[in-house]
Amino acid sequence: MRFITFSTAQDPSPRLALRTESGLRGLSSANAARAPQSLLELIASGSAAMREAAGAIEQLGDPIDPADIIYLPPVLAPAKIICVGLNYLDHTKESKFEQPAYPTLFLRVTSSFVGHDQALIKPGCSEQFDYEGEMVAFIGRGGKHISKSSALEYVAGYSVSNEGSVRDYQFKSPQWTVGKNFDRSGSIGPEFVSADELPPGGAGLKIETRLNGETVQSSNTSDMVFDLATVVSLVSEAMALEPGDVILTGTPAGVGLARTPQLFMKAGDVAEVEVEGIGLLRNRIADEEN
Amino acid sequence: MRFITFSTAQDPSPRLALRTESGLRGLSSANAARAPQSLLELIASGSAAMREAAGAIEQLGDPIDPADIIYLPPVLAPAKIICVGLNYLDHTKESKFEQPAYPTLFLRVTSSFVGHDQALIKPGCSEQFDYEGEMVAFIGRGGKHISKSSALEYVAGYSVSNEGSVRDYQFKSPQWTVGKNFDRSGSIGPEFVSADELPPGGAGLKIETRLNGETVQSSNTSDMVFDLATVVSLVSEAMALEPGDVILTGTPAGVGLARTPQLFMKAGDVAEVEVEGIGLLRNRIADEEN
Repeated sequence: MRFITFSTAQDPSPRLALRTESGLRGLSSANAARAPQSLLELIASGSAAMREAAGAIEQLGDPIDPADIIYLPPVLAPAKIICVGLNYLDHTKESKFEQPAYPTLFLRVTSSFVGHDQALIKPGCSEQFDYEGEMVAFIGRGGKHISKSSALEYVAGYSVSNEGSVRDYQFKSPQWTVGKNFDRSGSIGPEFVSADELPPGGAGLKIETRLNGETVQSSNTSDMVFDLATVVSLVSEAMALEPGDVILTGTPAGVGLARTPQLFMKAGDVAEVEVEGIGLLRNRIADEEN
Repeated sequence: MRFITFSTAQDPSPRLALRTESGLRGLSSANAARAPQSLLELIASGSAAMREAAGAIEQLGDPIDPADIIYLPPVLAPAKIICVGLNYLDHTKESKFEQPAYPTLFLRVTSSFVGHDQALIKPGCSEQFDYEGEMVAFIGRGGKHISKSSALEYVAGYSVSNEGSVRDYQFKSPQWTVGKNFDRSGSIGPEFVSADELPPGGAGLKIETRLNGETVQSSNTSDMVFDLATVVSLVSEAMALEPGDVILTGTPAGVGLARTPQLFMKAGDVAEVEVEGIGLLRNRIADEEN
């Protein structure tokens, strides 16, 4: 199943659509009671309820014109967005860090993300706005102290992220947080893809980032240092995971900061991140408005 | 004005109470429409509305028996909780870090905090559960690119935090996040104190942490490297601040990690953080249940 969260210029209230063989379909207000209108709620209801909702939308839904929609991040208000840094060895090598033996975790806030096809905002205060292509996982079932062997049962689905990073701010202090949390500096989408459509843990998928059509990152999700099951298990030792929690699984080598010459995103550029079987996330870059 | 957010064993739904000269008072359900029942909503409504609500509670509120209440963090679901690390020079010196010229920012999630008088949970996986006494500020008015000179107009009030930190996890990777976000490892409270009751920026206040009655941190909020106005202004360059956003302003020297011998919190201990004019936050420590 593939869902998007969207609004329209006419109706800013976020709602859900299902991708079907005949295109996107969503429930009109007359049928809205037949399925949750938020992906977080749908995820929390479990996979059987998700299948039932998909069936209702397929049967009763109205076609949605892709030209009308404003894509939003699939889950709008997760309890937490956990990012894994230094999770591809070749990316760690191009950074100034040693590969840690434990996942390098940091948090992003929801306001740092936009959806597919929305502008990523290059801050006025920086010329080092960098891309990071990543696979995203969404927690379906909550839990704590989850074993690695059962961890993937807690994952409801996947998406794609450009974990946009403002490099000079990222390294102004020992903690990366500010450079990772500029408003509308990252993106997630376009779709939430249910876990049953993908290999376990989203492993073995080609991941590629392109800037203005040129490939700048190219790797495979199997190259992660800490695979998704390990990350879910280790995070859950510290924090109870909740339905809708978002995990960004890290970026491979090729970021603009590490290139010679360096390559950063500027207004008018188009950044694309594609993860095989999950989707293609495309965003143009715009300057911050004053 | 001094508000608490609380629930009771009989009624788990969070609500507000005002501290008055005759004790805590809250609106019964019959009068609940006279004032918001969430501090976030009250903060967002502005200082005039807050005074009006306080007046309504003072006039119509029922006495609340302190023995009945379960204290919760004053703001339950802020959009973001921003922490400033390395913000007292003497604490930076006792750490392994150089003093950065920019605030060291990191994020905590709401699930990492409990209220006053609730147990802080020492994780089963660590024997390095440390205290950090801090002053807390709450954003009242949202804004971006806030100048330092007007920054304090955006602060609605203050509270106290024990920013409990799991040290071995904090330093397992270059990012502190996991060690700062264990479930129920920190506390905020007991009260939200409106800014008009305190010196501008909460400056010049004695801050003290005690473990089992022994003073372990003792400093003054004027010793911050980056004062509150500077932090608000710099954060707002990256992220739009929203009403209810929480800023933890950093801890002074004396943390358990830096002592010889080291001193960590264990089950049965009582940790207190007191900030002059704001309040005394007390928590007992309990072991994580399996």
